[in-house]
Amino acid sequence: MPTEAFQDSYPDDLSHCFGCGRLNPHGHQIKSYWEGDEAVCRFTPEPYHTAIPGYVYGGLIASLIDCHSTGTASAAARRAAGDGEDPEGAVRFLTASLHVNYLKPTPIETVLEVRAQIKEIKGRKVVIGSRLIADGQVCATGEVVAVQVPEHLMPHR
Amino acid sequence: MPTEAFQDSYPDDLSHCFGCGRLNPHGHQIKSYWEGDEAVCRFTPEPYHTAIPGYVYGGLIASLIDCHSTGTASAAARRAAGDGEDPEGAVRFLTASLHVNYLKPTPIETVLEVRAQIKEIKGRKVVIGSRLIADGQVCATGEVVAVQVPEHLMPHR
Repeated sequence: MPTEAFQDSYPDDLSHCFGCGRLNPHGHQIKSYWEGDEAVCRFTPEPYHTAIPGYVYGGLIASLIDCHSTGTASAAARRAAGDGEDPEGAVRFLTASLHVNYLKPTPIETVLEVRAQIKEIKGRKVVIGSRLIADGQVCATGEVVAVQVPEHLMPHR
Repeated sequence: MPTEAFQDSYPDDLSHCFGCGRLNPHGHQIKSYWEGDEAVCRFTPEPYHTAIPGYVYGGLIASLIDCHSTGTASAAARRAAGDGEDPEGAVRFLTASLHVNYLKPTPIETVLEVRAQIKEIKGRKVVIGSRLIADGQVCATGEVVAVQVPEHLMPHR
C-alpha cells in the first residue's frame, strides 16, 4: 500500500500550491491517499480556521475539496495510465469548476475527513465527487471538474 | 458614501472568520463595499497564494467569492430592512452552497477584483452572483446561496 501522498509526488516546481504544496510553508499542506477506490484526506483545522465561533470556515472546506479532488484526479490519471507511464508523477490538474453544498455547520474541534470518488475520466478531464465528514456526519458535499494543466501554462518546464 | 467595509460592521464576536474577520490576524481580511448596485472586493494576493507558478490558488478565489458574497448578503439585508432596523450590523450569513467556474488561470501579480450582484432575496436566503476580474479579464464567476445564521448556532450571543 503506497504511503506517499498524491500531492507529495508532484515535482518540486509544481509543489508550491497554497492548498497542497509540500514546499509552501504558508499553505494548508493538504494530503490525499487511496483507501481502496476512495481517496481520503484528513485535516485538523487550526482554531483560527473558524467562521462563526465553533465552526470551520467554508472557504477552508472549499480548499480541502479543491486540492483533494485535483490530487485525486492526478492519482487516478496516473493509475489509469499505469504507474510506469508517468514515473515523475508530473500529471497536474487545475480546477475548471468547484461546487460545494454546505449541509450543516462543520465543527472545528475535530479531524475533518474528505472522501472522494471518481465519477468520470475522459481525455484530460476528470470529475470527482466528495463528501466532508466530521464527527461521523456528512457536513458538506463537493463536485469538482478537474482538467490536466495545459503545457502552455508551464513555460518554465 | 459609506467607507466602512461590510465585514467591519460585524460585531466583535462574529469577526473572527478566517476569510474576512477583522479580528483574525491569521486570515485573509477580505473586505467589501458598495459601488452603486454592485458590491466590490479588491484583494492583492501574496506570492505564496499560488497554485502553479504565476497563477492564483483556486481555493483563495473560492474564499474571496465566499466571504464577499456573504458580506454582500448581509449588507443587502440591512439595506432592505432600512439602516435603522439593524444598528449593530448583527445580520450574519452562512454559505449554503458555493459554485465557482474557473474560466481562465488568474494571474497572481495584480489586484483581484470581485464584483457581485444580488440575484434574489427571499426571507432569510440571498442568492449572489459574482465575477472575478484580473488585468481587465473575467477569470472566474461565482454563485453563492447565503442563509442568515440561525440563532441556535450562536449560543454565546
